[in-house]
Amino acid sequence: MALVVQKYGGTSVANTERIKNVARRVVRQHQKGDQMVVVVSAMAGDTNRLVALSKDIHDLPEGREYDVLVSTGEQVTIALLALAIQNMGVPAVSYLGHQVRILTDNSYSKARIKSIDSENLHRDLKEGKVVVVAGFQGVDEHGNLTTLGRGGSDTTAVAIAAALKADACEIYTDVDGVYTTDPNVCSDARKIDHISYDEMLEMASAGAKVLQIRSVEMAAKYNVPLEVRSSFNDNPGTWVTKEETKMESQVVTGVSSQKDEAKIAVRQVPDLPGIASRIFAPISEANIIVDMIVQNVSTDGTTDLTFTVPKPDLKRALLIIEKTANEIGAKKVESSENIAKVSIIGLGMRSHSGIASKMFSTLAKENINIQMISTSEIKISIIVDVKYTELAVRVLHDVFELGKK
Amino acid sequence: MALVVQKYGGTSVANTERIKNVARRVVRQHQKGDQMVVVVSAMAGDTNRLVALSKDIHDLPEGREYDVLVSTGEQVTIALLALAIQNMGVPAVSYLGHQVRILTDNSYSKARIKSIDSENLHRDLKEGKVVVVAGFQGVDEHGNLTTLGRGGSDTTAVAIAAALKADACEIYTDVDGVYTTDPNVCSDARKIDHISYDEMLEMASAGAKVLQIRSVEMAAKYNVPLEVRSSFNDNPGTWVTKEETKMESQVVTGVSSQKDEAKIAVRQVPDLPGIASRIFAPISEANIIVDMIVQNVSTDGTTDLTFTVPKPDLKRALLIIEKTANEIGAKKVESSENIAKVSIIGLGMRSHSGIASKMFSTLAKENINIQMISTSEIKISIIVDVKYTELAVRVLHDVFELGKK
Repeated sequence: MALVVQKYGGTSVANTERIKNVARRVVRQHQKGDQMVVVVSAMAGDTNRLVALSKDIHDLPEGREYDVLVSTGEQVTIALLALAIQNMGVPAVSYLGHQVRILTDNSYSKARIKSIDSENLHRDLKEGKVVVVAGFQGVDEHGNLTTLGRGGSDTTAVAIAAALKADACEIYTDVDGVYTTDPNVCSDARKIDHISYDEMLEMASAGAKVLQIRSVEMAAKYNVPLEVRSSFNDNPGTWVTKEETKMESQVVTGVSSQKDEAKIAVRQVPDLPGIASRIFAPISEANIIVDMIVQNVSTDGTTDLTFTVPKPDLKRALLIIEKTANEIGAKKVESSENIAKVSIIGLGMRSHSGIASKMFSTLAKENINIQMISTSEIKISIIVDVKYTELAVRVLHDVFELGKK
Repeated sequence: MALVVQKYGGTSVANTERIKNVARRVVRQHQKGDQMVVVVSAMAGDTNRLVALSKDIHDLPEGREYDVLVSTGEQVTIALLALAIQNMGVPAVSYLGHQVRILTDNSYSKARIKSIDSENLHRDLKEGKVVVVAGFQGVDEHGNLTTLGRGGSDTTAVAIAAALKADACEIYTDVDGVYTTDPNVCSDARKIDHISYDEMLEMASAGAKVLQIRSVEMAAKYNVPLEVRSSFNDNPGTWVTKEETKMESQVVTGVSSQKDEAKIAVRQVPDLPGIASRIFAPISEANIIVDMIVQNVSTDGTTDLTFTVPKPDLKRALLIIEKTANEIGAKKVESSENIAKVSIIGLGMRSHSGIASKMFSTLAKENINIQMISTSEIKISIIVDVKYTELAVRVLHDVFELGKK
């Protein structure tokens, strides 16, 4: 008998037929003797409906009331799923974030979980009930409702699995698992059977959208084994766990790409101590997240500083950076939206040499110019012209032999 | 400066335009210096949407999870209304039932309020905030969400007005107030300016649907002055208060009719002690509400017992009553759905004689046969063939001079 936390995303509960399918899966596993906790997102489309209502009402809907509004989506699905399970003759009980209770900080729309009270859940599980928990939401210490941000239901599921010391946390979605790269780009992309938390984190930050980064961080922190799999079939999925010997010995595990960043270059910056901080402090104060940063070696007492920001923040970032460039005497500021980030990820990079040069020579053969390079212990990311994105992904997927055998 | 509780029903918040209208009304009154608490229902149609979802999922949706589902409707409106008020530059904060907190018993879908914690509301009002509260919902002592039944938002508003010792509780709806009778039946029906709690209770139980009966009972108990008025114009409404000398000195205040009951007659029941209890106990156990009961004087040791039940319960009631009739040796059971209840209501009946006979003779003149009669201190109800409903209402409205002068 195992204690399993399952999480079903919005597409898996998009309508009442699909909710009944989820109920059948849950009941089947419950009848095998497993203790079941099910975390659900809002029905696909429902959150968008609520957001549209709020935009009709308010110029910039946000804060406490916005979270009260959007958290109704998950409340609807937990009630419907609990009713569906009950209708199959199995006792089920739903919990809202404040009923569990999932205590968070007070940062509306991006709250972080501080603690989870698992007492009620343990009691219900012991009584043989299926427990259905609303994803995405929590409550602060004053009883205000909070939400965890896009994809927050993954984090809810992992946090509950950690609190309950569950045997596994199964993340159900509309794909079969984590792939070596986007199957829409490489038709021979292969589902990965096992991947480490660290690799999954780099995959997620490199653009693989199958799991929220925070949920992987939390799974790693509490050593919660995750399985990413499809709610539309019974295929085994991808296990995300701590590093184990049984993991594939391949050097490179996956290739990811991301087109949602823009590049800013500050040319001929006087190369003085404290210059980088002068440039990035005002951007950070404006809550703009800088991803890659590259600084060239100094020539003639000046240097070029290049970095990437999310495309929606480019205009704001340019206003700030042009002011700074003027103050510090940089020559000019350039920017481009026509870029993409392409990354290769793999634990094996730690112990293999020559991976980077193989990557660069492969791209050179295709005449793909590399604009920026950034590396971590298990990832190499490059910035290229956006038009080369798919080509770069395909040739890298091939050269590192990630496709189906 | 007054402390005012306003309640807006589903049609008043049916879409974002109407919610903005409500926000404008609230802000206008707030800017005059009143402390404002606003109770809202779900957007018209939203509850039906949720109920339809639950019926797709479960054969007989009810209980704890059903209340979790339907209480999302009010959660959406409080968030939207608070955002709309904030967008007009006035601070506003929303409260769910469990946040107030509105403590109820554990009877899902028909919970009764046990207490209201008004501390947070008083604090917010002192700070100049508009407080927006979800109608219809509460929480039991274990933190389970509960709902108060159809029209429960009226009860929420009155209960909060009582807890806060508000100066008035304004119930906004889609009509201008309480009328002497249904204006669709009598074109000269007149809006009543003042009516007592007792009369309003009898009007409501006689079919006037403008206020939930429980909300009027609660207003009477805590002496909360109610004003029923329209959210679509600025016309003064109907004040529902304790009996006062300024109330109209008319003998009859209103005429109501109701077509949602059916009649059951048990013929030639042996007239023995305990017979009525033998008949009604099993019906009560089946949770069927009996409204009027008439028992004729005994002839030949037998009597006829006639009573009314809600039409949807008729079949169930007949199954029960036929079994009982057989056991106690009654001759036969008859029933009819083609009946209507017509009532006249007025405080003046207490001190005026001849009202009943005037009612009966008026109907006799129109050849309307009276099938049953039931009286209280301030109401006379009769059962007639349903085809005479509107005619009976019109001639009674005329003879008691209730129309426009």
